[in-house]
Amino acid sequence: MSNICKDAVTESHPMNGGDGTYSYTKNSYFQKSATNVARCMIHNAVADKLDISQLFSNFATSSSNTFRIADLGCSIGPNTFTAMQNVQEAIQHKYRLSQSRPHNSSSSSSLAMPEFQVFFNDHVTNDFNTLFSSLAASERPYFTAGVPGSFHGRLFPSSSLHFVHSSLALHWLSTMPKELVDENSPAWNRSKVHYTNAPNEVYKAYEAQFGRDMAQFLEARAIELVVGGLMVLIMPAVPNNVPLSQMPLGVIYGLLGCVLMDLSKEGFISESEVDSFNLPVYVVSPKEMIGIIERNGCFSIEIIELYKPMSSVNNGEITPLTVTMHLRAAMEGIIIKHFGTEIIDELFHRIHKKMEELSNQLQPRTKEGTQLFLVLKRKSS
Amino acid sequence: MSNICKDAVTESHPMNGGDGTYSYTKNSYFQKSATNVARCMIHNAVADKLDISQLFSNFATSSSNTFRIADLGCSIGPNTFTAMQNVQEAIQHKYRLSQSRPHNSSSSSSLAMPEFQVFFNDHVTNDFNTLFSSLAASERPYFTAGVPGSFHGRLFPSSSLHFVHSSLALHWLSTMPKELVDENSPAWNRSKVHYTNAPNEVYKAYEAQFGRDMAQFLEARAIELVVGGLMVLIMPAVPNNVPLSQMPLGVIYGLLGCVLMDLSKEGFISESEVDSFNLPVYVVSPKEMIGIIERNGCFSIEIIELYKPMSSVNNGEITPLTVTMHLRAAMEGIIIKHFGTEIIDELFHRIHKKMEELSNQLQPRTKEGTQLFLVLKRKSS
Repeated sequence: MSNICKDAVTESHPMNGGDGTYSYTKNSYFQKSATNVARCMIHNAVADKLDISQLFSNFATSSSNTFRIADLGCSIGPNTFTAMQNVQEAIQHKYRLSQSRPHNSSSSSSLAMPEFQVFFNDHVTNDFNTLFSSLAASERPYFTAGVPGSFHGRLFPSSSLHFVHSSLALHWLSTMPKELVDENSPAWNRSKVHYTNAPNEVYKAYEAQFGRDMAQFLEARAIELVVGGLMVLIMPAVPNNVPLSQMPLGVIYGLLGCVLMDLSKEGFISESEVDSFNLPVYVVSPKEMIGIIERNGCFSIEIIELYKPMSSVNNGEITPLTVTMHLRAAMEGIIIKHFGTEIIDELFHRIHKKMEELSNQLQPRTKEGTQLFLVLKRKSS
Repeated sequence: MSNICKDAVTESHPMNGGDGTYSYTKNSYFQKSATNVARCMIHNAVADKLDISQLFSNFATSSSNTFRIADLGCSIGPNTFTAMQNVQEAIQHKYRLSQSRPHNSSSSSSLAMPEFQVFFNDHVTNDFNTLFSSLAASERPYFTAGVPGSFHGRLFPSSSLHFVHSSLALHWLSTMPKELVDENSPAWNRSKVHYTNAPNEVYKAYEAQFGRDMAQFLEARAIELVVGGLMVLIMPAVPNNVPLSQMPLGVIYGLLGCVLMDLSKEGFISESEVDSFNLPVYVVSPKEMIGIIERNGCFSIEIIELYKPMSSVNNGEITPLTVTMHLRAAMEGIIIKHFGTEIIDELFHRIHKKMEELSNQLQPRTKEGTQLFLVLKRKSS
C-alpha cells in the first residue's frame, strides 16, 4: 500500500493567497458566479440521480451513519464552502423526501439523516491554515477534514466516499509534456505560451497529457467512491469541434503570449524564457470527456451539459479590468515562478490595455456554454 | 447537528513553530523519548487489548475496510508521525497474527488487512501547512487528513474511529477559571503563575477545570469511537497523594513564577501582570483519572500505569539547559501573548541560571514514573 499513498509527482499551481488586491479571495467572483449557477444543477442532479436506498444499504449494516463528501481542488475558500453547503443541503433535502414517503418497514430504520463529513482536498502547497481559519469562523453543519495531495493519485481509502465534487480544478495539468520545450520536437511551442493558435503538435501534446491526467483521476476515484456514489465535475470547456482560439479564454491566453513576446522584444525578458513557458491548462470538449470516461469504464454518465457559468445579471461584470484581475489572481504565481516578480505589474498593465482594445472578443461568441457540468455515478463492478 | 460542529470555545497553546533554535521541532526530544518508550507499551496494548473480531464484525458487513486512527493534539511533528507509525505497525502485526491462526470459515474473508486512514488533529491555530509538508516529504503507509478544532468538543462523526491516540496534550486546560484572576476570590493566584505552592483554592480551581475538560473530552470520544475501539492517552502525571511541588515539573513552574516576580520587582513588568498570568496546565494523578473515567461510564480501563518517560540512556540529557529550552519551546507563545516579547531573552536567561542552582531538584525524586499511560476501551452501550 505504500506506493498508492505517495503523492503523485505533480506540479501545484496555488491561487494567490491572502486577501489583498490581487488575491484569489477577492478575484474569484467569476468562480463564485459559476458556483451559484451550479447550485441549481447540483440540486437537480442529487434529486434525480442519487439513489439513497443503494447508498444506505451499506449504512444499514454498519454501525456508522456517515455521508462522506470530498471537494477536490478546493483552494482556500470561500467558493468551496458555498459549494459544500449546496451539496450537503441537496442531499439532506433528498433524505427528507425519502423519509416523508411511505416505505417498507425493513428500511424504515435506515433512513435516519446521516452525519456529514466533508474532506477539503488540494495540493500540499495550498494554504490550509487560511482554509481552516475561515472554516472555524463560521458554524457549519458537517465535520471537516483537510486532505493534502494531488487528486491525480489516491487520496482516500477504498469505498470511503459517497459524493465527490470538483469545480474548476481538473483543467490544470499535473505536469507539462517535455516536448513543448524541446527545440528538436515538432511540438516545440516557440513564441507562444499555450496551444491556442499554436501548431497542431502542441495541441496534441497538451491533449495527451490531459488524457493521462483524467485517466489517473478516474482510476483513483473509481476505487474511492462507493457503488452508487455520485461525482460532480465542473470544468471550463469548448463546444465539440470548436477550437479554443475562437473562445474568450483562448483570446486571453493568446493575448498573454503576445504581451510576453512584446516584453521580450523590448528586453524585459529573453525570448527563450517565453519559449520555455507554457500555461498548464487544457480546455476539454464534451465529446473528448465522454471518450475518456468510457475508456475508464467504471462510471455511468448521468448528466453531461455545457452551460453558461455567468447569469445574465453578472454579465456586466465581464470587463477588461475584471478579466485581467481574475487572470492575475489565478496565474500570477506560475508567471512569477518562471519570469520573476519584476515584470508582473508591467505585464498585467499591458494585458489590461490590450483587453480594452479586444473587449468585444471577451464576450462568448457561441450560443453554447463555456463550462462543462458532468455527473458521473460509480457503477457496480 | 450544527451545535456539535461548532468549535468548542477553547484557548489554543501552539508550540513554537518553524525549526529555529527555540522551535518545538528542535526542542521536543523529551517528548520524542517519551514516544519511544511508549512504543513498546502501545505494541503490548494493541496485542493484548485490541479485539479485532469485535471491530471487523463491522467491516464484514460494510463495503469499506478502513481502519481509522486519530492523533489528538498532534502539533506539527515529527513525534506525531513516529507515534502514528507505531500504532499502525502494532495493529498490522495484530492482524497478521490473526490471519496466521486457524479460524472458522465465517470470519475468514474478513481478516483482510484494512487500509489505514490517520486523522491529525490540533487547534485551528496549529501550523497544518508545516505538518502537511512534512507528511508529503516521506512515504507513509496510510491515507492522511488534518482535522482542525478543539478535542474538547466533537471532531468526528459517530462511531467513525477505531483507535484514538493523544500524547502530552490533555494536560493543557481549555480555558482558565476566572476566579484565578479575581482579587476578591479566595482562588486569586497572586504573585504566582501556577497552583504549585499556591493556596488550596487555586489548586481546586485548576482541578475543577481539568475535570470539566476531561468530561467533555470523554463524552465526545465516547460518541466517535466504535464499540471495542481503543484509546491510548499519555499525559504528565503525579503519583497518588504526591503534590506537584515535590516533582520536577512543579519545581520548574515554581521557578518560572519566582523569576517573573523578580522581573516585576525590578520594573521589567508590573506585578499585576504576574498576578493575572497562570500556566494553563494541570498534572493529574492516576486516582483522579480513574474517578473521571468512571463518572463518564462509557470506557473500561484496560491499562493504567505510571511510567518513566526517559530511558536511562536519555537521563543524561536532563540538564538545566535542555529543560530551559524545552520550557521555552512549549511556553514561549503564551508568555509572549501575555507579557510581550521584550522580556523573553532575559526571562529564559535567568531561568537557566536558577535551574543550574537547583539542578538536583530537576531529577525525579520518587521511584514512580511521571507520565501516565492509559488504555481505554469503548464499552458497548
